[in-house]
Amino acid sequence: MNHEDFFKIKDDWNLQIESLDEEQLVHYGSNLLCGNGYLGYRGTLEEWGKEQYQACVITDTYDMADGKWRELSNSPNALTTEVMVAGENIGDFPGQNKMTTELDFNYKYGVFKRISESKNNNIEIFSERFASYDNLHLIANNYQLKNIENDEVELKLGINGDIWDLNGTHLENFRGEYNSNKNILYLKAETGESKITLVTALSFRFKKGKIKNVKVENEKKSIYLLINVEAESDKIDLDRNMIVYSSNDVDAPLKAALIDADEALELGYQKLKEKNQTIWDKKWELMDIKIKGNILDQLAVRFNLYHNIIAAPAHSDRLPIGARGLSCQAYQGSAFWDQEIFNLPMFLYTETETAKNILKYRYHTLNGARKKAKDLGYDGAFYAWISGKSGKELCPSFFFKDVISGRKIRNHFNDWQIHVSPDISYTIWKYYLATKDIDFVVDYGSEILFEVARFLHSRVHYNQYKDKYEIIRLLGPDEYHENVDNNAFTNYQTQFALKKALYFYYKMENEYPEKLLDLKNKIDLTESEVTAWQQISEKIYLPQPDENRLIEQFDGYFDLEDTNAEVLKERLIDKEEYWGWPNGVAVFTQVIKQADVIQLFTLHDIFSEDVLAANYDYYEPRTQHGSSLSPSQYAVIAARLGRAEEAYDYFKKSAFIDLMSTNKAVSGGTFIGGVHTAAAGGIWQLIINGFAGMKIDRKGLSFKPVLCQEWEEIEFKLNYQAKKFNVTLDQNMFKLKAAAGNDEALEFSIFEKEYTVDAAEEIKIEL
Amino acid sequence: MNHEDFFKIKDDWNLQIESLDEEQLVHYGSNLLCGNGYLGYRGTLEEWGKEQYQACVITDTYDMADGKWRELSNSPNALTTEVMVAGENIGDFPGQNKMTTELDFNYKYGVFKRISESKNNNIEIFSERFASYDNLHLIANNYQLKNIENDEVELKLGINGDIWDLNGTHLENFRGEYNSNKNILYLKAETGESKITLVTALSFRFKKGKIKNVKVENEKKSIYLLINVEAESDKIDLDRNMIVYSSNDVDAPLKAALIDADEALELGYQKLKEKNQTIWDKKWELMDIKIKGNILDQLAVRFNLYHNIIAAPAHSDRLPIGARGLSCQAYQGSAFWDQEIFNLPMFLYTETETAKNILKYRYHTLNGARKKAKDLGYDGAFYAWISGKSGKELCPSFFFKDVISGRKIRNHFNDWQIHVSPDISYTIWKYYLATKDIDFVVDYGSEILFEVARFLHSRVHYNQYKDKYEIIRLLGPDEYHENVDNNAFTNYQTQFALKKALYFYYKMENEYPEKLLDLKNKIDLTESEVTAWQQISEKIYLPQPDENRLIEQFDGYFDLEDTNAEVLKERLIDKEEYWGWPNGVAVFTQVIKQADVIQLFTLHDIFSEDVLAANYDYYEPRTQHGSSLSPSQYAVIAARLGRAEEAYDYFKKSAFIDLMSTNKAVSGGTFIGGVHTAAAGGIWQLIINGFAGMKIDRKGLSFKPVLCQEWEEIEFKLNYQAKKFNVTLDQNMFKLKAAAGNDEALEFSIFEKEYTVDAAEEIKIEL
Repeated sequence: MNHEDFFKIKDDWNLQIESLDEEQLVHYGSNLLCGNGYLGYRGTLEEWGKEQYQACVITDTYDMADGKWRELSNSPNALTTEVMVAGENIGDFPGQNKMTTELDFNYKYGVFKRISESKNNNIEIFSERFASYDNLHLIANNYQLKNIENDEVELKLGINGDIWDLNGTHLENFRGEYNSNKNILYLKAETGESKITLVTALSFRFKKGKIKNVKVENEKKSIYLLINVEAESDKIDLDRNMIVYSSNDVDAPLKAALIDADEALELGYQKLKEKNQTIWDKKWELMDIKIKGNILDQLAVRFNLYHNIIAAPAHSDRLPIGARGLSCQAYQGSAFWDQEIFNLPMFLYTETETAKNILKYRYHTLNGARKKAKDLGYDGAFYAWISGKSGKELCPSFFFKDVISGRKIRNHFNDWQIHVSPDISYTIWKYYLATKDIDFVVDYGSEILFEVARFLHSRVHYNQYKDKYEIIRLLGPDEYHENVDNNAFTNYQTQFALKKALYFYYKMENEYPEKLLDLKNKIDLTESEVTAWQQISEKIYLPQPDENRLIEQFDGYFDLEDTNAEVLKERLIDKEEYWGWPNGVAVFTQVIKQADVIQLFTLHDIFSEDVLAANYDYYEPRTQHGSSLSPSQYAVIAARLGRAEEAYDYFKKSAFIDLMSTNKAVSGGTFIGGVHTAAAGGIWQLIINGFAGMKIDRKGLSFKPVLCQEWEEIEFKLNYQAKKFNVTLDQNMFKLKAAAGNDEALEFSIFEKEYTVDAAEEIKIEL
Repeated sequence: MNHEDFFKIKDDWNLQIESLDEEQLVHYGSNLLCGNGYLGYRGTLEEWGKEQYQACVITDTYDMADGKWRELSNSPNALTTEVMVAGENIGDFPGQNKMTTELDFNYKYGVFKRISESKNNNIEIFSERFASYDNLHLIANNYQLKNIENDEVELKLGINGDIWDLNGTHLENFRGEYNSNKNILYLKAETGESKITLVTALSFRFKKGKIKNVKVENEKKSIYLLINVEAESDKIDLDRNMIVYSSNDVDAPLKAALIDADEALELGYQKLKEKNQTIWDKKWELMDIKIKGNILDQLAVRFNLYHNIIAAPAHSDRLPIGARGLSCQAYQGSAFWDQEIFNLPMFLYTETETAKNILKYRYHTLNGARKKAKDLGYDGAFYAWISGKSGKELCPSFFFKDVISGRKIRNHFNDWQIHVSPDISYTIWKYYLATKDIDFVVDYGSEILFEVARFLHSRVHYNQYKDKYEIIRLLGPDEYHENVDNNAFTNYQTQFALKKALYFYYKMENEYPEKLLDLKNKIDLTESEVTAWQQISEKIYLPQPDENRLIEQFDGYFDLEDTNAEVLKERLIDKEEYWGWPNGVAVFTQVIKQADVIQLFTLHDIFSEDVLAANYDYYEPRTQHGSSLSPSQYAVIAARLGRAEEAYDYFKKSAFIDLMSTNKAVSGGTFIGGVHTAAAGGIWQLIINGFAGMKIDRKGLSFKPVLCQEWEEIEFKLNYQAKKFNVTLDQNMFKLKAAAGNDEALEFSIFEKEYTVDAAEEIKIEL
């Protein structure tokens, strides 16, 4: 596949679609998303509606409309536009072939631009918009019509509440109003189940074009203005602002929306744009990765970084990063284990406040995790597989369908895939190592760590006969094998989580005895529990490399049929069939969906290189990469093994998942499209942990750099324990320059040799 | 259903089929089986072949022909007969409607009789046969043709090796020979995989009819004689003997077969018949149950007792009781848990030597059970779910088929249904209580008990959090729910098995210290293992009656959808669908296949009557009785609750399973026909443990009699610790008479009141 089949590159920040491919509309919507962690406005044209997957997903608006899936609501669309010129509906409508449209997206500032030219006359539509980081509730839009030779145009503007929803209709009780003095209108609605009020406001000003007449049309779910406008110099130029507030944001969302709509109109599009750019410039100062030598890859990297940034609700400590961010309603706008293991690492070493907020979200959802544990007969915190606002489990017990029989399948994502809990503990530890933010650990992290340890204590079983603790009936990262025992990944993560709970328990006992006492009282934690954690962490069964240096993914894995994904594809009765539990084609074979033992290696650098190599070589041909989480992790280990070209191949697979739409948007009748945010986060890891070989552990910060031939140089910034530095890596040289403002010297190792750099000092290592 | 749709009753030992129903042929074959624990010759006509399910199953001839199922071989048929009179093939062939046939079976002596009359002329065929208990290798047959008005008949006799096999052809390398001096012919063959030599011999003598000419026809798999016979007084009367020997029986099976064939011919049919009858008379003296007031039920009871007797290889201590006995090859002629829990109880209190032999079979198969445990990562003896001669697991991992997709299903009968091991320990304890045969326990039983305890030790998991041992991932008696935890039946049985292992360990330590030492050395048993058994038996989790007095069948059972079998039937997509694992209609519901908690109650009388009642009332409407094992167990508990009429209803369901062919012979393309021997054994329990309320435990022998209105009186004999006695129960009176020959007084209780009866003394209790 060639990227030019999908898009063109203008420069290393800008992507272009020169003409629309109707089959790709659903992907444009996601890839060209304007977002800011509060909302996501899909890359659609102003004249499009729900049939073209137009949507604006709003965070923190969970609602259940179909009795099964609780998901985020979409906002009514305040940028909806209908243009009538001389009785003709002007716009680029799929299937009509009346206009040619070029799309342009700037990933530096999240700016979507469209230019459409009529094939019949000279009329042009130009529009540009962005979701503001200065005001998260704002989408600013400049909309222009050019070459209007007729004097008058009939514009239908307004707020369209008849919107795209994946799982049932969420909004009801619509009320719209128009304030003609201020040129502001709003549509207020309520979610059916959760009773959240959602207000969408629109303010507008014609910079060119004279309003001749305005007629208000109030429909059941929408409010429109029919405006007769007289073009000026054959042109109509409109600034408008879409504002969204929910009653979860503020007590009086309508009031807030109207104020913001008014203010935005005051400031005007250009000023709003500048404010947004200032914030993005700061973000990129922390988070950009520069790649020399391949503009396509550079753009792809920035595409992924951009999407990881806008997926994160950095403004809040009570919201999850959705597995599809805010690019659509798929995956419920909810956190999976992806959040800690894929999305967070980038923030841990750059925008640490965001990392902290996301981890605090897990603190605020402890009660949901406690409830889940209790409901399943366990203690402590068993985090939801699909975690929304409350942290209660949003993953239904039955959601896959056996496409052959039509009978629903009981998948055990919600009760057997326990590694999500220790994954969170793992990331708290990494956050602590990266920031030394002990206050966070003492005030928030420790409670998570202890409750996860408690859960694990109640979940493991002691096998007296083997004198080992075992974990029975698991679903590891590889989701094709359910109901397995002693999944290596889960068991190692469990030990790690217990050890870190113990570490902070004793640290608090020594350094924060009163805080510990308070916490122990709060959660009724006893000494005997802590003793048990110790025992379990010492005696948990950890699969060791065998005589071939292989670690068995779970008990009995090596006894399964040894084949590969291509062979299994031939065995499918229906190509929509699920490959896994309970009777899919992969279940009784060694074919795995995604990195599992390899995933373990990316998190724990505790095995020798020959063990890594043996397992990489074994598992790699048996991995289907049926999950977007997989390629980046193989890449990290390939790079760690010095196999830079293999790592690069995986970079290609991972970085272009969305850009070249290699994953299906709909599977088995279920919409699973949208941006793969975990893959986006994985790209950061692939470069920093893979090519640069960066790692932190209790021994400190270290690098094992290796660069693929396709790139001349990579450059990025990191923030390690409040010491900032810049890294440049080319084929021959690894350079690390400490920021001028650092208070302390930075210590690190490269290929196990130790270095210290003072503020503003640079060190260069020949490779 | 009326029994007359299936058969007529001649008297309380004899059943008649007045005219053949072609759809019932497969059931006649099983129900009218001649057998003796060594072989089973199906109730078919002499002119029938494999299309009519003619077969003679031979014990101890395991062979695998299809790479999947190891099963018993069928012998070539030495009673095959073709009659030509005036160019016409005389016989009752399905679909031809040339003759009417009456079948008669005598269950007292296992005698099959057929009389067929031609519809076109006066020719009659009469034939009678039995499998001898005097010589287990012999089937004796008297065959007559009457009203032969033509002078000469052409008879094709011989041995037909082209036989019915369920799972592949077992016999090959056929060699046949005819000794014309002795009128003996034989066919020798070999099993393909196991290389067992099987010899089938035939000796014959015409008592009426003159041989005019004999021509030998040697076919690839058969040997025939074409005999021209001249009728005498319009009659041909032929005695013949079919003899079968395998190389597993004797070193020289051919020689043995020829000797027996010759001897049988010497003795003649009448003498052979008398010898067989003498042995049966002795058996019935021990095992008959007499029922007054309902001749149909009396016959049905005897039908079941007969089949339980002929299914048991009483002659050997190295062979299993097949789940279908020797009535066909289905279920591999192998032992399931049915053997100990359903077939054995009758022998435990009557023919105790047979009980001992069957238990010794489990001793001789310890290595198979050890291998299975080891292969699955456990220690000790994990008995095979399907246990043949060696005790190795014969249950394949994949045998059911998803009839909708056609894809095979991994059922976990072989690895998760662990209760078979403690079930054997349970029965060893019962054998000990019934016989006080400590020598058996010391020499054989203890090794089984210890190895089972060892297995259970390696199978349980300690839940430190709950301070309980748990058993995770089980399949209990109710086979519709796989992968469950803490199945009440299995957990209670496990505790019981551990306690009895400990009991005999300490008993041997005190009374047989050297034998214990030898055994400990032999199996490397350590003190710490014994300590562990103690710990586990004290702390194993045993589900207790809840606030509604209900015992949960397994963890989470009560959370499943509460519905019934009728509703589920509506949900079937294909009526051949398996209801259970992994995605059948019963899996996520409370509908169970068979008695499970109720099965626990039949084995352990440790719960109060109100707990029994609550659970009976709860589980009964949720039980599909999809297994023939189920109704008898519900009956026992119904009787224990004094609900004699409900018990009687279950008697009807259970006793007539085969007689009225209520179970399908073929399911999902798999032949599962044949006699339900466990149900046969269950009938004994239903009457003795149910209506008579007999029970033995460490407190001794006791009765809680109650009789259903449909019966005037039941009478049976028992043998308890070498003290024989006779019990008579009617609506008003319970009478127990000790045998004249008893050495000691018999102690027992009735309704918890204690009694002692000396030899020949009788006690009468008004009810």
